[in-house]
Amino acid sequence: MSKQLVLVDGKWIASTGTSFFRAVNPATCEQLADEYPLSPWEEIERVIDAADRAAKEARSLPSEVFAKFLERFADRIEARAAEFIAMANQETGLPVEPRLKVAELPRTTNQLRQAAAAARDGSWSELTIDTKNNIRSRLSSIGPVVVFGPNNFPFAFNSAAGGDFAAAVAAGNPVIAKGHSSHPGTTRMFAEEALEAVREAGLPPAFIQLVYRTAHEDGCRLVSHPKIGAAGYTGARATGLTLKAAADRAGKPIYLELSSINPVCILPGALSERSVEIATEFSTSCLMGTGQFCTNPGLVLLLDAPQTTEFVTAVKEKFDAAPVGTMLSEGVLRNFEAGVKSLVAAGAEVIAGGQPGGGKGFCHRNTLLKASGDQFLANPHALQDEAFGNESLFVIAKDEAQLIAILEALEGNLTGAVYSAHGGQDDALYSRIEPTLRTRVGRLINDKMPTGVAVSPAMNHGGPFPATGHPGFTAVGIPASIRRFAMLQCYDGVRQHRLPAELRDKNPHQNLWRLIDGQWSQCDVG
Amino acid sequence: MSKQLVLVDGKWIASTGTSFFRAVNPATCEQLADEYPLSPWEEIERVIDAADRAAKEARSLPSEVFAKFLERFADRIEARAAEFIAMANQETGLPVEPRLKVAELPRTTNQLRQAAAAARDGSWSELTIDTKNNIRSRLSSIGPVVVFGPNNFPFAFNSAAGGDFAAAVAAGNPVIAKGHSSHPGTTRMFAEEALEAVREAGLPPAFIQLVYRTAHEDGCRLVSHPKIGAAGYTGARATGLTLKAAADRAGKPIYLELSSINPVCILPGALSERSVEIATEFSTSCLMGTGQFCTNPGLVLLLDAPQTTEFVTAVKEKFDAAPVGTMLSEGVLRNFEAGVKSLVAAGAEVIAGGQPGGGKGFCHRNTLLKASGDQFLANPHALQDEAFGNESLFVIAKDEAQLIAILEALEGNLTGAVYSAHGGQDDALYSRIEPTLRTRVGRLINDKMPTGVAVSPAMNHGGPFPATGHPGFTAVGIPASIRRFAMLQCYDGVRQHRLPAELRDKNPHQNLWRLIDGQWSQCDVG
Repeated sequence: MSKQLVLVDGKWIASTGTSFFRAVNPATCEQLADEYPLSPWEEIERVIDAADRAAKEARSLPSEVFAKFLERFADRIEARAAEFIAMANQETGLPVEPRLKVAELPRTTNQLRQAAAAARDGSWSELTIDTKNNIRSRLSSIGPVVVFGPNNFPFAFNSAAGGDFAAAVAAGNPVIAKGHSSHPGTTRMFAEEALEAVREAGLPPAFIQLVYRTAHEDGCRLVSHPKIGAAGYTGARATGLTLKAAADRAGKPIYLELSSINPVCILPGALSERSVEIATEFSTSCLMGTGQFCTNPGLVLLLDAPQTTEFVTAVKEKFDAAPVGTMLSEGVLRNFEAGVKSLVAAGAEVIAGGQPGGGKGFCHRNTLLKASGDQFLANPHALQDEAFGNESLFVIAKDEAQLIAILEALEGNLTGAVYSAHGGQDDALYSRIEPTLRTRVGRLINDKMPTGVAVSPAMNHGGPFPATGHPGFTAVGIPASIRRFAMLQCYDGVRQHRLPAELRDKNPHQNLWRLIDGQWSQCDVG
Repeated sequence: MSKQLVLVDGKWIASTGTSFFRAVNPATCEQLADEYPLSPWEEIERVIDAADRAAKEARSLPSEVFAKFLERFADRIEARAAEFIAMANQETGLPVEPRLKVAELPRTTNQLRQAAAAARDGSWSELTIDTKNNIRSRLSSIGPVVVFGPNNFPFAFNSAAGGDFAAAVAAGNPVIAKGHSSHPGTTRMFAEEALEAVREAGLPPAFIQLVYRTAHEDGCRLVSHPKIGAAGYTGARATGLTLKAAADRAGKPIYLELSSINPVCILPGALSERSVEIATEFSTSCLMGTGQFCTNPGLVLLLDAPQTTEFVTAVKEKFDAAPVGTMLSEGVLRNFEAGVKSLVAAGAEVIAGGQPGGGKGFCHRNTLLKASGDQFLANPHALQDEAFGNESLFVIAKDEAQLIAILEALEGNLTGAVYSAHGGQDDALYSRIEPTLRTRVGRLINDKMPTGVAVSPAMNHGGPFPATGHPGFTAVGIPASIRRFAMLQCYDGVRQHRLPAELRDKNPHQNLWRLIDGQWSQCDVG
């Protein structure tokens, strides 16, 4: 057993806290050896003050420094990949291959490198020049960003290496990482490499800091502190809403990813055409990673028909036959059990699974639930509760009107998918349901399951409340995700030599896009 | 006396409310004849339901319809200009010329026409296409927008015609206008013309609705209602924060413009060079419109020096000599008196004015206050309270270090201005103060007073809390102000014919800018 250090102001130091926790290997249910501290408020204040000083120093640095940091960091993660994968596997139970090694680690370093390219290029910052009035504006760093990472992506959404982290850094902001308690060792390793990359890039030493745990009220004080610029949070809804309330009161932007059941509408023509194929696609998507994805298809909307009955049976058989995965933690398992029970209490019928066990460590049988459209509409809120894990609820609407009524009752979600016949037989119905579904989701998908989230400039990993806190922002995709961690800065009549280089008449480099008098341009002014 | 109607679902109807109010002519302190209702919650609910239906209908309309509405509306306002100006003058006491006739009315119709052009063009919506993954995204309408207009711009920020209104409509959203109680007649006239323009353009009749007053708690229910997309509020801080808390809890975007004292730093070289000129510029800016501007220069930062003493004396003389304007209402006057008293209680010394009276109707003597840097730093929060009106506080710092300490103590503001010598004598000091001032304000100005707010794509009429609720958005300037009232909609693998025209491979018109695979382009895909 060893007491682990926190990263404060460029140094690994012993926490002044007196309370410690240990992570648990979810596959063995055994505690791991290392002890991680709960940081008291005095320690958090030291972190905030150091981040504030780092933000001031960082403001005068060229964006090349942030780009270099992100690239060096990505290189360092790859150099230590085997160790990262072993640690994350031990702490989360997520499979080494393909998940951690082939999918998540490369995605994480790819995000960091995309963020580096965006920082170096600068076009993310919406440079706008009005030559007639000599008014110019851009998005620029907002101040220290607090990142709360979730349990389910130890790499790609890690508070010290994931999407929010990369976006905050690309905008030039110091990051205060609040590690998730379920994988503190993975987060510590990221912070170790980040600190080295900070030194190599010549950033202020406090640019990246790490604490593992805080009292709940200190999390609220942190996100609402006057010296903090913004926060990013991915995780459980209740905690997120508590942080949001605190940040909102202080007028501090906080970007949240809270919950989503990701409705999938499978239209009759699609089922007639390729029922078997869709059953396979759905089961793979829903059970992948033991269903612990923000974009897990947790609600499937179907129309009552013979092919629907066959489809449900086919999926049930797949759920029964598929191996049961390990869940991320005992807490996830307990919440999942409670979630399934609550859906059943609200009227859903168990078709497959429904009980804990069936696999290794913390686990729960692959669970398929069913409800009629009448049942759903009688209890639409309770039947939209997220059971985070290897579960989905099939809702069978009696007719098209009821399908639309169900869509009308949907809360905000990250995604909504529609499967329809390739031949066009479902097109009329598609055009009737699309307008409603469109307003309920951030990403509308055709003929694909929602679990793949490409890191694309056009991606929206966001959506209406309560999926997130604001429907205008995405947590994935560069450059848009970077713009969350920036303030709008206008220069009105400011003398040329006092302007940031990117806003001067001369374009500092030929790849930089600027909106000059209403036209996007890579040229100099005039 | 006549009881005025509310505009609900395309019809002017008698309110079901039983409580009425009358506007007051601030120049005569007399009540005007018309009676305006306080709408009960049942009436607000009818408005919300109608707006929701209108939003659904409007979603399928081409943007040309919104553009046509905005243009027809601008034409109609101009056709009735004399009547608008007379009504606004009567209700607000603002001068007919140049203010209402030459400045504010043309600005308002110009905003509407700029919004029309942006709606027609479509480039505001950040169309983004990833051809490799067939993922496409855009910003699109968010749903009904509630607009709360302020007292101080009966035209340009009117809830039924101003900047938030134009931006919300350009994004395709119905507007629920909550008129300001101090100029209900002006607002009613706008809604009359808007309704005619709605008919001419072929928009759903409930696209524009108007109520005059609600109970405070109903305002909160309105901005947090599930069928509402977003809200815009310009006005007093306390009311704004109450609405913000309600909207935030419901996860509804609300854009606020709350208060700002707009620090102006006048550096020693500038005073040596052109003290008389700056004294004139400052006095004109501070007393214009009886100081009732969001960007009124309410705080002037100076360094202790002989030329500073002369400058203060010169401004005092101008304040004493200038005519005293009429304030917008008795409430504004009472708040202003209380604000001045509170600044004096916090240590400020009265140099000029300091008492009510001196002009016509509701009025207060032009007031100049002074405090030392020590005093300011001893009580920085109280000395940053906004006294909304013809007042400014001069703070004299004893040295450069204290000037920077004062800047560090500044809250978020819309603007910050620096006057410096043309010859470069102040450049070293400028570069020392700029980094701090830059993070405290949305718009950084050189050698100009903040009261001019150009409707420019590069404008930022926004800034850090408590000036607004989020530092990333501007209330003035097209296209950026439009993007506030939109949600991000991603299309992932969606079939070509199901995409919005703007996201299909073929660019629907050659002026439309789209970010295709990372490059801004006006071409077709491929």
